[in-house]
Amino acid sequence: MPVLTFTSDFGADSSYVAQMKAAALRVTPELTLVDVTHSIEPQDIAGGGVVLEDCLPHFPPGSAHVAVVDPGVGTERPIVAADLDGRLVVAPDNRLIGLVMRRLPLRQAVRVERRAEFGDSNTFHGRDIMAPAAALLCAGLPLSELGPAHQPLGWSDELPPPRASQEADRLTGQIVNIDRFGNLITNIFHDQLPSAALRVRLGEWSVEGLQATYGRQLGDLVALIGSCERLEIAVVSGSAAERTGARQGDLVEVSWEAAAR
Amino acid sequence: MPVLTFTSDFGADSSYVAQMKAAALRVTPELTLVDVTHSIEPQDIAGGGVVLEDCLPHFPPGSAHVAVVDPGVGTERPIVAADLDGRLVVAPDNRLIGLVMRRLPLRQAVRVERRAEFGDSNTFHGRDIMAPAAALLCAGLPLSELGPAHQPLGWSDELPPPRASQEADRLTGQIVNIDRFGNLITNIFHDQLPSAALRVRLGEWSVEGLQATYGRQLGDLVALIGSCERLEIAVVSGSAAERTGARQGDLVEVSWEAAAR
Amino acid sequence: MPVLTFTSDFGADSSYVAQMKAAALRVTPELTLVDVTHSIEPQDIAGGGVVLEDCLPHFPPGSAHVAVVDPGVGTERPIVAADLDGRLVVAPDNRLIGLVMRRLPLRQAVRVERRAEFGDSNTFHGRDIMAPAAALLCAGLPLSELGPAHQPLGWSDELPPPRASQEADRLTGQIVNIDRFGNLITNIFHDQLPSAALRVRLGEWSVEGLQATYGRQLGDLVALIGSCERLEIAVVSGSAAERTGARQGDLVEVSWEAAAR
Repeated sequence: MPVLTFTSDFGADSSYVAQMKAAALRVTPELTLVDVTHSIEPQDIAGGGVVLEDCLPHFPPGSAHVAVVDPGVGTERPIVAADLDGRLVVAPDNRLIGLVMRRLPLRQAVRVERRAEFGDSNTFHGRDIMAPAAALLCAGLPLSELGPAHQPLGWSDELPPPRASQEADRLTGQIVNIDRFGNLITNIFHDQLPSAALRVRLGEWSVEGLQATYGRQLGDLVALIGSCERLEIAVVSGSAAERTGARQGDLVEVSWEAAAR
Repeated sequence: MPVLTFTSDFGADSSYVAQMKAAALRVTPELTLVDVTHSIEPQDIAGGGVVLEDCLPHFPPGSAHVAVVDPGVGTERPIVAADLDGRLVVAPDNRLIGLVMRRLPLRQAVRVERRAEFGDSNTFHGRDIMAPAAALLCAGLPLSELGPAHQPLGWSDELPPPRASQEADRLTGQIVNIDRFGNLITNIFHDQLPSAALRVRLGEWSVEGLQATYGRQLGDLVALIGSCERLEIAVVSGSAAERTGARQGDLVEVSWEAAAR
Repeated sequence: MPVLTFTSDFGADSSYVAQMKAAALRVTPELTLVDVTHSIEPQDIAGGGVVLEDCLPHFPPGSAHVAVVDPGVGTERPIVAADLDGRLVVAPDNRLIGLVMRRLPLRQAVRVERRAEFGDSNTFHGRDIMAPAAALLCAGLPLSELGPAHQPLGWSDELPPPRASQEADRLTGQIVNIDRFGNLITNIFHDQLPSAALRVRLGEWSVEGLQATYGRQLGDLVALIGSCERLEIAVVSGSAAERTGARQGDLVEVSWEAAAR
């Protein structure tokens, strides 16, 4: 059965999500439904973008994905359906999928037009347009049947940078997410780091070198490459968020001896 | 595969919900499982009723639904299985489905009797009776096989009114739900409103006219018809709940020039 | 479709869970996915053990289960796949499944070895090893193909005792869980209790006798056998946790006239 996922800022366990699933199942009764998360901060397009970037590449080609962080619902902003390296994503065209588009090559995209299968509210396009549109794709409807070709908006300079900025002997990134374990997850990626002795700095805190895993140095502040190729700052069997008081958006700097690169 | 949904006051991410799903899957292995919400306030029959009223009509005919807000578990209150315009609902007979019954015509209902497939606890009928009963319906068991005909209890005057009360030149309703965006959702329905110039009043706050959508007038308090045909009070890109300090149960009044109706 | 469940300490609505599901679906596209809970306290092996003990026996034989509470991720601790009376469980070998093993007879277990289908992070074995391993089992791979025979670690004396300790005229147990209704759930099991007049004591609180159900004695503190055969202390239409101020780990004593046993 086709896989259809949902990501939104509706809040965990929101019945709005169930309404989206109901709308999808009305169109395509055989679906494997998966929630990515609904805990994106309300209307936080940048935060939603990071989650989609980290999660969507794990899903198999052919899967479909509804993403709803939509401050402009009911205005003229288009709804876009895009084929990103085989993942079929339906979302408001508000840069929400801008980071995934950097990871998964855009093959084709259209602006979704109203159809008979869609609902007609002005306030809940996730249920009335995006979910049924994605369900139609799951049932095999070609993308081009949903509407005319359309180039989705990419990431914007006004949003937090997708990747840390690079200088000769340092990277300056920021914390893009803090997970339940208090791990501080950054926009500094593995492939940005030289194979040199690294120093990671966060405010007054400083860490030397990268650990291979969480499982050592109980209680120490460590830096490591997390499961989405991002540099993380962690406390083994503790919370780096509590230890450092750091917050989303705080700057993280990685430096090294310039010669080593 | 048949769709089976779950609604309860067990709390988000409760493992009690997983036990209900396990019990359903033991009876009918092929099911599409959907959570409506488990964040109903503990034992809040009225709050559960509103969620069911707003969500169940979106699910396709033939879907089955377990609803558990059950302060009387273990007492003699019956468990009812009802065909509501093709949706098969299993719930305690405590008025929880009273609002859905007003929306979706009742075709048939029975009082569920104990069966070999059921568990035998006195404290968790959701898992031991309702989930397997609904799973049997999903597998095609006729409703009448679950027990003798039974008229479910409808909504009661002691619960909050399903719809705002109507006078010549005004409607008096109340806030029945506040969503994660701080939108104040009322029991005033679209079809109750005249096509006149409206004034919406909530405590000391007053709003003139209805907006078509959230997407305009950044920061203003607005009134609009939300996605479930209910009048909502919202702040565009903000929270009406924070702005007004309103709470569930607060009165909302809509008035107009009497001649206009 | 095979049933695959997930239990973890990642937090409700965590997108880490979606990544595990994605990894499983890549290996085996046809799965019925169920969340048990992700609200285990971070790295609380004992708390996870109780949830698994109470939930897994409800799932049908043939179902597969990923359980991740994994403070040692990235260290040399093995990952185990076990057949527990037909339930196929994949978890870190850190005693997390020690309580389920006491309930469901261990038929076979192996230490999971790296495979081509697995991911290669050092920090997220739930996604990169456990989920795909369980998905392979769902697709029919024999357990023995995952790795060499291995005896999983059982429960430990350093963890809270699985069952209350027994003396001639009393049982001394503890509160192992507090649910959303404020019910205090203990490690005192139905089959440990004599058919005598019982007194249940919790700190300064005392209750005489067991009730059959929650549904009586509105507002009183009562003791009863809950839906997982455990002694619970509850307040009918109220919260025993609020009433008593009790916390997880607090001692509960059941006593009776010694002659009665």
